[in-house]
Amino acid sequence: MVKIPVVRDILEANDRIAAENRRIFDENKVFVLNLMSAPGAGKTSLLERTVDALKGEMGIGVIEGDIQSSIDAERLSKHGIPTVQINTDGACHLDGNMIQGTFSHFDFKTIDLLIVENVGNLVCPAEFKMGEDHKIMILSIAEGDDKPEKYPLMFHESSVLLINKIDLLPYVNCDANKIRESSLNINPDLTIFEISCKTQEGLVEWYQWLKEKVHTSS
Amino acid sequence: MVKIPVVRDILEANDRIAAENRRIFDENKVFVLNLMSAPGAGKTSLLERTVDALKGEMGIGVIEGDIQSSIDAERLSKHGIPTVQINTDGACHLDGNMIQGTFSHFDFKTIDLLIVENVGNLVCPAEFKMGEDHKIMILSIAEGDDKPEKYPLMFHESSVLLINKIDLLPYVNCDANKIRESSLNINPDLTIFEISCKTQEGLVEWYQWLKEKVHTSS
Repeated sequence: MVKIPVVRDILEANDRIAAENRRIFDENKVFVLNLMSAPGAGKTSLLERTVDALKGEMGIGVIEGDIQSSIDAERLSKHGIPTVQINTDGACHLDGNMIQGTFSHFDFKTIDLLIVENVGNLVCPAEFKMGEDHKIMILSIAEGDDKPEKYPLMFHESSVLLINKIDLLPYVNCDANKIRESSLNINPDLTIFEISCKTQEGLVEWYQWLKEKVHTSS
Repeated sequence: MVKIPVVRDILEANDRIAAENRRIFDENKVFVLNLMSAPGAGKTSLLERTVDALKGEMGIGVIEGDIQSSIDAERLSKHGIPTVQINTDGACHLDGNMIQGTFSHFDFKTIDLLIVENVGNLVCPAEFKMGEDHKIMILSIAEGDDKPEKYPLMFHESSVLLINKIDLLPYVNCDANKIRESSLNINPDLTIFEISCKTQEGLVEWYQWLKEKVHTSS
């Protein structure tokens, strides 16, 4: 974020649009997740697994946010769910207005769960609301165990931390317990799951959390 | 980056400060690298290896950029070189002014090579010059082979791409040749090294490139 006075105005304007989105989600009973991480932590792989596991039980829609390309939307659309790609054309995060711009492409009557995959960036996306129910973050253990201390805002803002790629633990210098401890130090309410999208370890617990949240909200 | 008209003014103001920095680096014959990557790609590990390999041959200084914490500066200062930590306090990149603010902490007469470790972010740092000779980027193969297409600006702006953590290749779904091809498609002048800071594979070629550049400039 550029540190200039106008930034506060931008964030306030964004908050107003996020509140409008929230009202529309509430009216249509759509539960919304804002999925954030550094580049390559595994957001799209988690989405593919989650969609396949839950699409028989609920209507799911996906918004893919990328600076350029439609690689992720192409991956997701193969899983038989409505998917919209946002290209930010250089911008490093999604905002409320970009999300609102996708609404005409969805039939919210058929959607219980809308998952928004943000731009891969451990900094800026955490500052911009989009009207979501929860911010969810993924950290790959290949990124190292010092990330909560170095990038605290996203850990502070998120409801769930998914520690991904735990199948790589034998091959990298990373202590998952240290990630857990320093994350909870920043945000004691954080729910943490250790997962591998490759081996599927730990994913059932994540699906269970998500199903309970969607059912409670509908 | 927030897409508002004032952004152009910010970038122009930054360019002016970067040009002042450049003049000071030239006067003092300091060769400067701006080291960028996503969080956890291995910038600090590469710095530790590079400092240990080259500090006997040249004077090296390091600037560490992080949103919070001084973890990286503490790691580097153990290697016996002058190190300054910048905390951006929320900002997602370093700029020319932050770099200028460190100058009083260095004796440039004793420094041939100044390496600046930027904030871990594959997007925003590529937009802000600091008066460097070269932008250098690191990509961890754990991040996947679709990153050049999804984050093209940093690949476009960099002189060198270090593909790091190649020791993990047997354990991740990543094609290093695909990274190489799509990077060169964006930037045909890119020099590419495949390295592992863990096993030290490929590092000698990187040291050689760097030594030649520093000697040519002095």
